[in-house]
Parts: sequence; structure tokens; C-alpha cells
Amino acid sequence: MIKRAVILSTGDEITSGKVVDTNANYLSDKLAEIGIDLVAVLTVGDVPERLEWAWRTAIAMADVVISTGGIGPTVDDLTTETVARIAGVKLVRDQTSVDKMRRMFATINRPMPENNLKQADFPEGAEVIPNELGTAPGFRMPMNVDGHESQLIVLPGVPREMKPMMENWVVPWLQKNRGTDTVFAVRIFQTFGMSESALDEAVAGLIKPGEAKVGLRASFPQISLRLTVEGKPAEANRKLEELAERVRGKISQFLFAEGEASMEEVVGRLFVEKKLKLAIAESCTGGLIGHRLTNVPGSSNYLLADLVTYSNDAKAALLGVQSATLEKFGAVSEECVREMAGGARKRIGAHVAIATSGIAGPDGGTPDKPVGTVCIALDSDGVKASRRYQMRGTRDWIKLLTSQVALDWLRRYALGLEIGESALFRR
Amino acid sequence: MIKRAVILSTGDEITSGKVVDTNANYLSDKLAEIGIDLVAVLTVGDVPERLEWAWRTAIAMADVVISTGGIGPTVDDLTTETVARIAGVKLVRDQTSVDKMRRMFATINRPMPENNLKQADFPEGAEVIPNELGTAPGFRMPMNVDGHESQLIVLPGVPREMKPMMENWVVPWLQKNRGTDTVFAVRIFQTFGMSESALDEAVAGLIKPGEAKVGLRASFPQISLRLTVEGKPAEANRKLEELAERVRGKISQFLFAEGEASMEEVVGRLFVEKKLKLAIAESCTGGLIGHRLTNVPGSSNYLLADLVTYSNDAKAALLGVQSATLEKFGAVSEECVREMAGGARKRIGAHVAIATSGIAGPDGGTPDKPVGTVCIALDSDGVKASRRYQMRGTRDWIKLLTSQVALDWLRRYALGLEIGESALFRR
Repeated sequence: MIKRAVILSTGDEITSGKVVDTNANYLSDKLAEIGIDLVAVLTVGDVPERLEWAWRTAIAMADVVISTGGIGPTVDDLTTETVARIAGVKLVRDQTSVDKMRRMFATINRPMPENNLKQADFPEGAEVIPNELGTAPGFRMPMNVDGHESQLIVLPGVPREMKPMMENWVVPWLQKNRGTDTVFAVRIFQTFGMSESALDEAVAGLIKPGEAKVGLRASFPQISLRLTVEGKPAEANRKLEELAERVRGKISQFLFAEGEASMEEVVGRLFVEKKLKLAIAESCTGGLIGHRLTNVPGSSNYLLADLVTYSNDAKAALLGVQSATLEKFGAVSEECVREMAGGARKRIGAHVAIATSGIAGPDGGTPDKPVGTVCIALDSDGVKASRRYQMRGTRDWIKLLTSQVALDWLRRYALGLEIGESALFRR
Repeated sequence: MIKRAVILSTGDEITSGKVVDTNANYLSDKLAEIGIDLVAVLTVGDVPERLEWAWRTAIAMADVVISTGGIGPTVDDLTTETVARIAGVKLVRDQTSVDKMRRMFATINRPMPENNLKQADFPEGAEVIPNELGTAPGFRMPMNVDGHESQLIVLPGVPREMKPMMENWVVPWLQKNRGTDTVFAVRIFQTFGMSESALDEAVAGLIKPGEAKVGLRASFPQISLRLTVEGKPAEANRKLEELAERVRGKISQFLFAEGEASMEEVVGRLFVEKKLKLAIAESCTGGLIGHRLTNVPGSSNYLLADLVTYSNDAKAALLGVQSATLEKFGAVSEECVREMAGGARKRIGAHVAIATSGIAGPDGGTPDKPVGTVCIALDSDGVKASRRYQMRGTRDWIKLLTSQVALDWLRRYALGLEIGESALFRR
């Protein structure tokens, strides 16, 4: 019965501060998802007696110990031999792993360094956990200490190798060995436009205690909501679907995706699907909207151009904003962004254009237009919209939030939804 | 004598995977900087018996225990009372902290919730560590266990409050109490354009063993080099200055800043200083160059406009790239980026313009121009340059590396250095 876990993070690169340990965070999240209680994370450098201390301490505290790091080919990689020493077993070379390693090196046409063979040595009695993306496989083995059996799970430290091994091998294994016949069915909702507390409140009324575990996770500027239902497989999935339907009904205005997806992915997918061509005119966001959209492969299928007109002259020359508008209302005004969006759309020949202008700070604020004043406009053949927002935060937050609101407008436009319901920060 | 440390990270938000523990990384780095050996990091949630276990374990292992988190006003915040219980002392209210808290709330015109007073309670015998940016002060206290004295240092978990407390109070205190009269003098060099191993090699020959500790830290795409000299204050600083001079002489081509500074800050500073006006024409970088430059306050003083011409039509219409050029050489060619840079400079009326075009992938590569082919051009009245690079990596790496090379060209241009020596990845 696996109820309690300890995570072991090892490596001098972590204890010297060179690298942030994101593995422990990823593993903590996965364990929380399948309902295993994380007792502690122990982090030590590549020092034999500290590694041994950490393993012994972890084994004494938990039903499962998951370790990352220390299984590479170098002399600093001490995890496998430490585990074997504690278990009192010898190392055995695994021929399947050797063959696989040789094939990997053959594919890239390079001779295999002999010290790589070390990575095919496992403590006697261990089960190999295959690593599809690297040369160091992991392993699992049981260990009996004072009548209590712990499971040791050893994974590499490289996140892109470790994560699929966790996802494809360890999580299913843990699910199966939790000692119950229940599973955890999980659904993630990506939202934008509601505060964390408003979202919490909206959902609280929908889900009765015991029906599901509700988790909120804010990664500014979007907030994801995670529903976890425990039960027998078919039942848990049916229940989850029912709850998901309730959630969709309640927060549909603010729900932009289910599963792992960013706002820019959603916008890109919609624009390709609807065969819409996009033009952007940015001022305060300085290129961030274009940057975010072009981070997603395939953006050249719908994005024609993004004119970052930082100076007033550029707004006039490149977008045709009238000097009278700039004089009378200023560059940060709904009047100006409307002309920016209209000018961008016509000059670039797009179906729709979005424009931003604002005061990102820390300087440049006035009593009428304090730092955080942001105007956004959308222009298309049918729909035209503009709005002034008062945002709060640092320069990068204001840029990021503005880009998010602009992307959300584009999403709403593509879906035929009303524009402008997405505001967290109203005038 | 403080030689060995343990870091304690506490909080359910960490053990549940909601938040990545960046505090431990920051503290590890600081400890490495002043030569204190980090034995382990222990991470536990807000569970009384686990907190108590972590504290007892840490105290037994180290001369100093630094903890973050668990000193806020809520019932989950258990650190202070746990420490007092272990020390066997009672909590005492600190009137100075109470007064300060009341003043903070008065400033923002809000009544102080009564549970905030909890944050002014400290174990008897503790010394208060002031928190200038929040309501929870930290504290330090010695604890004697089995004849061995440990120092306990308790800090808040909010990074922006914790870091200045560490910097201004804890680091000097640790320096003073290391039990030697030596200090660590530190200099950081920011480089771009050399690989980690090339930089390592270049510096290895300059610095004799024992003269200084050399640390490399790659945060793609820049690599920083840290020199640490231990010695009596005046002597260490003199020695550091001498070594810094050697380093400068050797890597001047690739050294873009000393201390904490980003490439975009350096470019911005130079352009303002030299009164240069900038225009940008981006294709594959999609707005990233503009985004990076506008992240730094004051960018409106030199950046006129950034034209992200993603489609060929936009390159022709907005920048005047000739259709013959696009047909004959393609959009990803030195010919095309030269016309983009020239067009941008003239149409926007800038002193200098930089242009990028490339294949960021994962699709769009051809045998002649595989994914990672990137062309960059700079245009000004005097200097004109263009170059084709072959980069490797994912879409976001290629975008980021291209933006970095482009910014480095602008830096070199502003300084009158030769363009194009910065390439990590040549054709």
C-alpha cells in the first residue's frame, strides 16, 4: 500500500544554486494528482555520505522514494551504487540496456564512450524503467527495512527525460500499487478574466464536498482549475464528466481551453480554422503579442504583420493615425487605438486587427492617465470595439496582462462572442 | 564558527507542487558565494510534526539553519511556535514590530487585522531581522543542542521580501560570524558569444589554482562568469580587481556587462547615451527583439518602431523588399534582410536598423535552408553588415538566440566594435 512518498533531489548543481530544482515541483504535482501524500523533499549534493543519509532517511519515512539525478556516466553519479550498498546487493549489468545504448550511439554515428556502460548497471532485483530520450534508464526496486517495505524509484535528473518516464511508467505503476481499486480522474480548465477568489467562489457552489477535489493554480495571467475525482475507473470518469459540464456552464465566458493549452495556442488554432488573417499594431506591449503568437508553430498561416509603433511619428506614418487625434486625445486613448487598429487592418490587408497603447511605467504616468492606463481596440469589417483599462503592477505585468486581454479579444472575435467581457481591471 | 548550513523550505504550496521553490535556489547560491557548505535542503508542508522533524534534523546537521516560509499571520503559519517549542522558550511580543506593522497599515489606510499581531511574536532570546517590504519580520536565535551551538535564521517565504533581508542582514551577519577575518570578494561578468567550455578554457589559463574560485552559469543564451576571491577585505578586493583586469583583457570581445545586467539593458543604455534612434524589422523572431528592449523602462527614448513583417507581402509593402529579391533569394536570405534593414531605417527615419529572417521550425526547412537557418542584417549610414547563421535547437531557442545575436550587433554598433564576432553558430 503506497500512501506516503519522499522525493530525493540530488546533484551539486542544485545545492550550489546553479540550477533551480523544477523536478521536485513536477513530481510533487504528479503525486498530489494521484493522491499520494508527500512527506518531504530531501535535497543533497553528490557527496557519498550525504546521499546515503538522504536515502536512509527517506526510506524510513515513506512507502515510496522517488529520486532524480545521479545516474549518469560520470564519477559524480553515485545514486545506483548508493542504493545497492544500502540494499546490500551487487550491481548487475543489463544486456538489453547495453544493446539499446549502443543502438542510440550508432544512430547518431558516434562511438559510445566506455563509461556509458555504467548506466546499464542496476542493483540486483531492480526492474528497469526505460528512458526513450536518453542513455540512462531508471529503475524500481523494493527494499525491506525493519519489516516495512519501501519502493525505491530512481529517475534521471534531466527534466525532458525524467518527465515522460514518470508519466508513462511511474504514475501508472503507482496508481496500480496504491492498494485500492480506485483511480483519480483529472480535468484541467484554463481560464482568464476572473480573479482566483471569484473563480473559487463560482466553483464552490457547484461542487459538493466529497464530489471532487478542486485545485486552483495561478500562473499569471491565467488561472487553471483542476478537478480530481477519485473512484472506480468508469464511475470516476462519468462523475468527472458530469462535474465538468457544470463547470463549463458556469464559467464559459472565461474558459478558454481544457487540458494544457495557452491562450496563444488557442488563438492560433482558431485563426487557422476560420481562415482569418491577422494584423497587429502594438505600442505599450512592444512586440509581446507578436512574440507570443509566433512562439506557436504555424503562426505564419494567419499572422501577416505586427507593427510596433512605439513613437507618435511611427503611429502616424505607418498606421495613419491623425496628428489631430494624437494632439487632442494623446497616444494612450481609445481614439488612438481605434485608428491604429483600423490603419493596420487596411494597410496590411487583414480580416481583423488588434491594437494596444498604454503606460507600462514606471515613468510616464499623469494624474489623468496614471501608470497602468491601457487602451485596446479591435477592428474588422463587422465588429469594432475599443476600451480603456486601468491595470496595476510592474512594467512586465502590465505588458503581459495587456497582451493577454488582447489575445482574449481575438479569441472572442474568432468565436463570435461579445468582446470585452474579459477584463479583470476595469476603468 | 559557521561552516555548514541546512536550508529549510516549508509550505503546503511547495509540497503540493503549486509553486516552484526558487527560494532554496537563491539561498544555495548566496551560501556558495560566501563559502558556506550546504549539507542539505529539507522541504516539508505545513504539518506540525513534519516541521518539527525538519527543524530537529536540520539543527543536528548544521551550524546554521536558514528557513523560509511559515511566519505569516494565518493558522497554517507554524514556524515560530515550532522553533520556540524545540528551544523550550516562550513567545514574546516585540513592541517595535507591532508599532511598525500599525504604521504600515496606516499608510495604506486600512485597519490592521488582529491576527497580524502574531507576526510580532518571537521566541525569547531571538533577534529581530527587519522586513522592509512586508509585515512579517524574521529572526535569528542561537540554539544549543548536545553542546553544539546552531544558529537558526527564520525568513518569510515571499521572495521579494526574503531576498533583501538575506542580502542586507543575513549575508553580512554570516560573513561576520564565519569565524575567520576573511571575506569573499565577488565579480560577475556577463558574456555572450563563447560556449561554456570555450569560456572555461579561456579563463583557466589566466587564473592560477588558489587565486580565485571560478564559476560558470549558463542561462541561455548568455553565460555569466563569477570570480570569487577569499582574503582580508582590502587584499581580496585588490586581488579581485587584478584578476578582473586579466579577464577583461582576454574576453573583451564577448564581455557585455559586469554585475547583474541583461543584453537589452546594455543596448538600451548605450542607445540613450549615444542619442541613437533605432528601427527594427523582424521576421522569424516575431516581435521578441522589440519585446525584450521594451521590457526595460525608458525604451521609448530610442526605439521608434519595430515592424514584424511575417508574410512576404508585408515585407514588400511595409519595408520595400523587392519582389525580385524574394523570388530569387527567398525571404530567408542575406539579400532579403539587407533590404528589410535598409527599408526599415529609411521609412522610419532611424540612425540604425536591424533585421532578422529565418526558419524557426519545426516545419519549413529545406535541404538548402534547414530549420535554424537565420539571416541578420544591420543598416546605418556608415556600417552595413549581414550574415547567415546555422543555429540548432527548438523554435523558442532559435528565436531567443537570434534576438540575442541581433542585440549584440546593436551593442557592437553603438560601441564602434566590429559586427559579427559574436556568433556561436557559424554557417
